[in-house]
Amino acid sequence: MKKNQNKLSPAIFIGVDGDGVISFGSGQPDLPPPKEVFESLPTMRTFKYGLIQGEVKLREALAKHHDSFTGDHYVIANGASEALDLTFRVVAKPGDKILIHTPYYYSYKPLIEMNHLVPVFVKTHEGKIDVADFKKKVRGVKAVLINSPCNPTGRIQDIDALKEIERVTQKLGVTLISDEVYKDLIYERKNYFLSGDKVVTVNSFSKTFAMCGLRVGYLFSSDLEIVKKVVELKTHTSMNTGILSQQVALHALKAPGKFVSDQVKIWRKRRDTIYDGMKDLGLDLWKPEGAFYVLPKIKDANKFVFDMFHKHKVITYPGEWFGAPDRVRFSYALDLEKIKEGLERIGRYLRKRR
Amino acid sequence: MKKNQNKLSPAIFIGVDGDGVISFGSGQPDLPPPKEVFESLPTMRTFKYGLIQGEVKLREALAKHHDSFTGDHYVIANGASEALDLTFRVVAKPGDKILIHTPYYYSYKPLIEMNHLVPVFVKTHEGKIDVADFKKKVRGVKAVLINSPCNPTGRIQDIDALKEIERVTQKLGVTLISDEVYKDLIYERKNYFLSGDKVVTVNSFSKTFAMCGLRVGYLFSSDLEIVKKVVELKTHTSMNTGILSQQVALHALKAPGKFVSDQVKIWRKRRDTIYDGMKDLGLDLWKPEGAFYVLPKIKDANKFVFDMFHKHKVITYPGEWFGAPDRVRFSYALDLEKIKEGLERIGRYLRKRR
Repeated sequence: MKKNQNKLSPAIFIGVDGDGVISFGSGQPDLPPPKEVFESLPTMRTFKYGLIQGEVKLREALAKHHDSFTGDHYVIANGASEALDLTFRVVAKPGDKILIHTPYYYSYKPLIEMNHLVPVFVKTHEGKIDVADFKKKVRGVKAVLINSPCNPTGRIQDIDALKEIERVTQKLGVTLISDEVYKDLIYERKNYFLSGDKVVTVNSFSKTFAMCGLRVGYLFSSDLEIVKKVVELKTHTSMNTGILSQQVALHALKAPGKFVSDQVKIWRKRRDTIYDGMKDLGLDLWKPEGAFYVLPKIKDANKFVFDMFHKHKVITYPGEWFGAPDRVRFSYALDLEKIKEGLERIGRYLRKRR
Repeated sequence: MKKNQNKLSPAIFIGVDGDGVISFGSGQPDLPPPKEVFESLPTMRTFKYGLIQGEVKLREALAKHHDSFTGDHYVIANGASEALDLTFRVVAKPGDKILIHTPYYYSYKPLIEMNHLVPVFVKTHEGKIDVADFKKKVRGVKAVLINSPCNPTGRIQDIDALKEIERVTQKLGVTLISDEVYKDLIYERKNYFLSGDKVVTVNSFSKTFAMCGLRVGYLFSSDLEIVKKVVELKTHTSMNTGILSQQVALHALKAPGKFVSDQVKIWRKRRDTIYDGMKDLGLDLWKPEGAFYVLPKIKDANKFVFDMFHKHKVITYPGEWFGAPDRVRFSYALDLEKIKEGLERIGRYLRKRR
């Protein structure tokens, strides 16, 4: 690794682990998946093509969570990433505008741009969407992408704002894409489910069931025309989502509700530890209400990330990847002892810098 | 199913099986995967994110087959389909032209068009590329896609033609994409490996190892710039290919060479049976040299497909899906008894029709 490397890219952190490294980098749960997922592994003996839309049993099991949906409304995809990519590709054509809120998940902007679409950014205050700014910028966009709870802010959108977003997009006929991959990790209230005639909900097994690398996500929509177009596109771009991964995902749904609620308890304790710890360090930050990220304001953010990594073996991600160049993202997907040790190192560095 | 359904679409055949149905439809091996693939299934216990480019062990194992490549030249993808889609997306931009040869695999045209690219079609004679036509049409295209052995024709391209295609694309700086998913199923000679500065080779575990539904494919190229761009794109469009599927694919590579050669013997016998049988029926067709398809000329092809399905329970695919509207595609991925029974039914139908 070159010490004088100026450009920060995710690649420099990949595979860096152990040897005293504390990683607040990757957004992946460190906890194990539910034991139920392993039950089926030894039994599969063929790997034939499946339906492009996804295994019927898996779609029907998912649909049980929503009264007004059936398996027909669902498409199983290679992670929420592919679900989003497919959605953009069927609802928009080159040159169309897509609205996102800043700070945003770091893939949104490149994903939009790589599809030859144009991102439009809406302001937030302490991570909450500026509804007036939203109403101004939503005119003329093809789709709106909402991410609540949000990576990287850890904030959820207020229900009043979400209802207003539903109302305005419905009225304008704009597709409303809701990336809800953290919906099961909310500390403050139940998830508010965005709905409407042109809503596409994106979700995943990655975070809830701690199986990011398995790559099983899905989308569902009451608009069967969108579902049909997604299936048509996926027929040519990747065919069925890996049949073995779908089998594992189906078994994850057999885990008791307690699996998820127990995890939320662990996440909440970590959230409190990192939030209180950062407050004690005098950092300016918003209290996370969901997911497992904090995004404190830090002077010379890029230098902080660079120094913490090279001099103190602490991995953090620069806010500029997320559209927040004066901030730094910390994932708290690591155990309490490591969080505390990481805070110690940060404290020492910040005191020296003052 | 509506009897008077006029439009033929793959959807009408999906899941139709048993009860005396003979399917020459789906292009998927009926033989089982090698037993080695199941060895690892019970042992995996975490599903963490992997490298976007693919597992190092898997890439290195693949690179052993080609002297001038290392794992760095490879990207593991969700099937050859995703490998192709990613390649199109990084080498071309909306409006660019992509050259393919007719008849073509039925996904090529929609995949090109859904990426806002323009397909250019090169003529073939008995499935062999018309080199003069190729040389005329290659000017101004962004990429050339060669598929030898070819689905749906079962034909391989002559080595002289392939060398000329290598030479011309290299000279013009045109990207040459070689879809070699059937390279291990050639009856006539060894595969000729297309190479050059801007060649991207696409391959898959699906056909060679009979695991289509697992969705593990890959691409490799000596052009590391293309590899880097593909990894960058995949970071946002699907992330790593399913980690469990990659593990299974790695174990498939441990199968002895005999696994593949034994399969080729079975395919050859089926090839001879269906080819000779169709000749006996008086059909006009080209002898398959690879893969597991025949594409005979059949009068009123769509009516034939429709009648054979609805009146005689035989599934075949209309040539129009493959750019050959006067022909019908038969996959012979089914056992000899079924092939013979299918030929019987076709014979009875054709005799009645005369």
